[in-house]
Amino acid sequence: MRYLTDIEIAQAKNPLHIKNIAEKLGIDEDDLEMYGKHKAKLPLFLIDDEKVAQNNLVLVTALTPTPAGEGKTTVSIGLTEGLNKIGKQAVVVLREPSLGPVFGMKGGAAGGGYSQVIPMEEINLHFTGDFNAVEKANNLLAALIDNNIQNKTNNLNIDPRTVLWKRVMDMNDRSLREIIIGLGGTANGVPRQDGFNITPASEVMAILCMSTDLDNLKERLGNIFIGFTFDNKPVFAKDLKAENAMAILLKEAIKPNLVQTLEGNPAILHGGPFANIAQGTNTIIATKMGLSLANYAVTEAGFGADLGAEKFLNIKSTFAKLNPKCVVLVATIRALRHHGGAKSEEYNTPNLERVSEGFKNLEKHIENVRKFHVEPVVAINSFISDSDEEVAFVIEKCAKLGVKAVVSEGWAKGGEGTKKLAAAVVDVVENKATQYKPLYDWKSPIKQKIETIAKEMYGAKTVEYSKQAQIDLRRIDRLGFNDFAVCMAKTQKSFSDNEFLIGRPEGFTVTVREIEIAAGAQFVIPILGKMMRMPGLPVIPASENMTIDKNGVISGLS
Amino acid sequence: MRYLTDIEIAQAKNPLHIKNIAEKLGIDEDDLEMYGKHKAKLPLFLIDDEKVAQNNLVLVTALTPTPAGEGKTTVSIGLTEGLNKIGKQAVVVLREPSLGPVFGMKGGAAGGGYSQVIPMEEINLHFTGDFNAVEKANNLLAALIDNNIQNKTNNLNIDPRTVLWKRVMDMNDRSLREIIIGLGGTANGVPRQDGFNITPASEVMAILCMSTDLDNLKERLGNIFIGFTFDNKPVFAKDLKAENAMAILLKEAIKPNLVQTLEGNPAILHGGPFANIAQGTNTIIATKMGLSLANYAVTEAGFGADLGAEKFLNIKSTFAKLNPKCVVLVATIRALRHHGGAKSEEYNTPNLERVSEGFKNLEKHIENVRKFHVEPVVAINSFISDSDEEVAFVIEKCAKLGVKAVVSEGWAKGGEGTKKLAAAVVDVVENKATQYKPLYDWKSPIKQKIETIAKEMYGAKTVEYSKQAQIDLRRIDRLGFNDFAVCMAKTQKSFSDNEFLIGRPEGFTVTVREIEIAAGAQFVIPILGKMMRMPGLPVIPASENMTIDKNGVISGLS
Repeated sequence: MRYLTDIEIAQAKNPLHIKNIAEKLGIDEDDLEMYGKHKAKLPLFLIDDEKVAQNNLVLVTALTPTPAGEGKTTVSIGLTEGLNKIGKQAVVVLREPSLGPVFGMKGGAAGGGYSQVIPMEEINLHFTGDFNAVEKANNLLAALIDNNIQNKTNNLNIDPRTVLWKRVMDMNDRSLREIIIGLGGTANGVPRQDGFNITPASEVMAILCMSTDLDNLKERLGNIFIGFTFDNKPVFAKDLKAENAMAILLKEAIKPNLVQTLEGNPAILHGGPFANIAQGTNTIIATKMGLSLANYAVTEAGFGADLGAEKFLNIKSTFAKLNPKCVVLVATIRALRHHGGAKSEEYNTPNLERVSEGFKNLEKHIENVRKFHVEPVVAINSFISDSDEEVAFVIEKCAKLGVKAVVSEGWAKGGEGTKKLAAAVVDVVENKATQYKPLYDWKSPIKQKIETIAKEMYGAKTVEYSKQAQIDLRRIDRLGFNDFAVCMAKTQKSFSDNEFLIGRPEGFTVTVREIEIAAGAQFVIPILGKMMRMPGLPVIPASENMTIDKNGVISGLS
Repeated sequence: MRYLTDIEIAQAKNPLHIKNIAEKLGIDEDDLEMYGKHKAKLPLFLIDDEKVAQNNLVLVTALTPTPAGEGKTTVSIGLTEGLNKIGKQAVVVLREPSLGPVFGMKGGAAGGGYSQVIPMEEINLHFTGDFNAVEKANNLLAALIDNNIQNKTNNLNIDPRTVLWKRVMDMNDRSLREIIIGLGGTANGVPRQDGFNITPASEVMAILCMSTDLDNLKERLGNIFIGFTFDNKPVFAKDLKAENAMAILLKEAIKPNLVQTLEGNPAILHGGPFANIAQGTNTIIATKMGLSLANYAVTEAGFGADLGAEKFLNIKSTFAKLNPKCVVLVATIRALRHHGGAKSEEYNTPNLERVSEGFKNLEKHIENVRKFHVEPVVAINSFISDSDEEVAFVIEKCAKLGVKAVVSEGWAKGGEGTKKLAAAVVDVVENKATQYKPLYDWKSPIKQKIETIAKEMYGAKTVEYSKQAQIDLRRIDRLGFNDFAVCMAKTQKSFSDNEFLIGRPEGFTVTVREIEIAAGAQFVIPILGKMMRMPGLPVIPASENMTIDKNGVISGLS
């Protein structure tokens, strides 16, 4: 016997027509913009700020993950099924997957097992074209920059050596990381060093996800900081009159996408910024759409809570005036063993001592969530290798901290396996929710914001700044960007900037190596380590094992 | 007073719901895959080979054009309106526009004036994502090639210096024409010279347009010739096991797109290969779809008849077993003046002498069409600067050749202005249509096919081959590709390979400089001059004058 693969489970399910899903949310069929029978875009006028304030936002985040990830998306989807099973009206709001990893190591990203969003293939392949629109808007700006450098009239005097704007492609293609463009003589542009990032790493993606409407999107696009002129003046996208054309390319992408879960509950997927160098969560518009249409909106933020939840709560929730009522911390026994010192080959072997030792990591995340005045629930994402003893230990330890920990069996059983988790979340929302508070004031100086995060969230003792970071801080000051939010770029493998410090490290120093500017997104990005922005393909690319038959049925997509 | 712009005319029209358009073609609403309310994809099972054979295919082509083009798309759309007005059931089948030129010089490509397909903005911006799918399939293959070169295991021994496969982007971006990739050390790939073409120049686009179904697409993708190993063996996409993943990326793109004309008649837009280095006409699938659904399918092929019609009739019609019943040759008085020696500043000034002299160009095209055993109709695409005298002259000269020439006023009046043209086309189809014959046998040697085209179509006296072309011919022979079709790459500005030889040049020599291989598309491409595969932006890019308001209404798109 073998388990069914995700695509097999997804294909076995006959999806409902998307108009039936929309009906569950009270959306008139006429307001839907269908993309085939199982996907639709939702018009922005369905957002209702009063309902956004009334309804209940639940954020799913995780402890510090192992490389395989701990299943936040699967738990988010499963929890939504469970909430609907116990009589709540719930929608899950998620990021759209990137195409690049589909052919690489990671595969698709639409949940797993019996907690998936469907149609899985279409969600993982082009979907409704949003990533392509982001890519084209990004690359139009790049073409306009090099065109301006090339031509003598209409010239902004841009110094090609200062251009920070990269081209993007939604593909795992390491050979494009560092390139030289503009070769071949005077007709072919001005030669300069350049490179491609993967599309979700584009600032345009970050901007799309921070925007509240089309006008706000356009303003943010215009504010993108490109580089400097030869006389050291900053150049922005609006100097190239690029913001309207870029917004035109994004005019459909700004609308959230409606799909469904395996159990026929509504799912909104929209935007997909990287979690390492951007905010790692879906668009503000989609979150507001979810809250406008359902009593419960379950959403997710990338990586562990020190990154994903921190950015969600300090950046997104503050800017969008959201009030998360409960934070679900996903934990796995496997990850707790890891934080207790288990090697990767020991991840699937029960070991209470390791779990006991590793619990410190989860405990720190619990403390962190409470610093935002939000009450956590721990979801133990169930694995076959979990022992009863280990699970009981975690539940008991959490209980001592006043936190409900519940085994989540969404992967194996769908909503039937998450009813208890759903009940625990409802209990927090109905009985323990308060007004969340961000950790810092956006108006405070950049350094102060960085230190607050490093000390309060990570548990660092001190923050050091490299020479480059100090130069960057002065540049930020000169450009007047001090009141931007801080979007930290750090390894997800540790609370610290050293991926080998597992568990709950203490007394450490984090080093800010450089600080990037995302002026359109309105945040600065302190870089605490080497960040991957263009993955490569593995030795045997996933594409080799994919097939499609004459009727268009796909296999081998994971 | 000023004329309305294309976008103003298009926006003033309230389009019908696409299901009402489908209804006109007898398509069940349930078989439609809607993309919003005004676009839909059509499933391939609607193709009916019996109806393809019964119904009437009309090809719109043109005399040798001036740089602005002579309005083939506008005439094709107008003719379709006219056919419907005189009681025929007609559909227009066209290429999809490329995004790159929208921000460059050329602007959009959805007809003009009162002969347009709508929604014009959406057709010109991403549309249903087909170009993006082609781009991603192309670039996945590129990433797989460089990944294979990078990794020691699973290695095919590809010589990076021989890789012919380029990356593509649907953007006018000259700086990407010639680049170096793979810089930055051992983790970032193997450095090599590379470049980007614009997406419609991809062989994947040519393949999509030649494919008859998903299996045929997959086979063709696998047959793409990439380059050589270090021991000089040819490498194909199938050696990288790329064809399934590429076909997966194209599984929606293979379905034709249904939209509508301004007068609410059906329009099928699908595929968009370059006319200079590829076949320059929509997919075979779309043409067959049109013929399956309507009594008349009006289609178009890029550039003048010496390129577009030649390729349509020798390559596409032969392979797809199509039987065009009438060829509409679009002529403008402006272009006839040009071929009579008028300078560009004299294009809009009546001059019977010039027109009389320039008529030789049209006459040669008429002769050419008849070599395929198809009867032409001449459509004089009406301009305000045309004099009655000039128009009368052309009609009379055509009549002497036994050809009906009709003034086409589709741009100014829509279908009301093309009823006479429609009647002339119906007369040919109903009374003069015979079985068309291709000019050459695919089985004949490459050189013989090239000579047939050069002598019969262009009027060349001799064909010469450069050293490189001779090497290429031997390579083609060695690879066993002699029975491929020949897809000529030549300037559209002259029958010859010298763009300055206007009118009807005679006694000239054409030189084949090199011959490319498109093994998946099953043609070789003799290059008779420098071909542009990645356009640049103009000094003032069109993007600068575009705006979008808070409701998503666009202006400045042309």
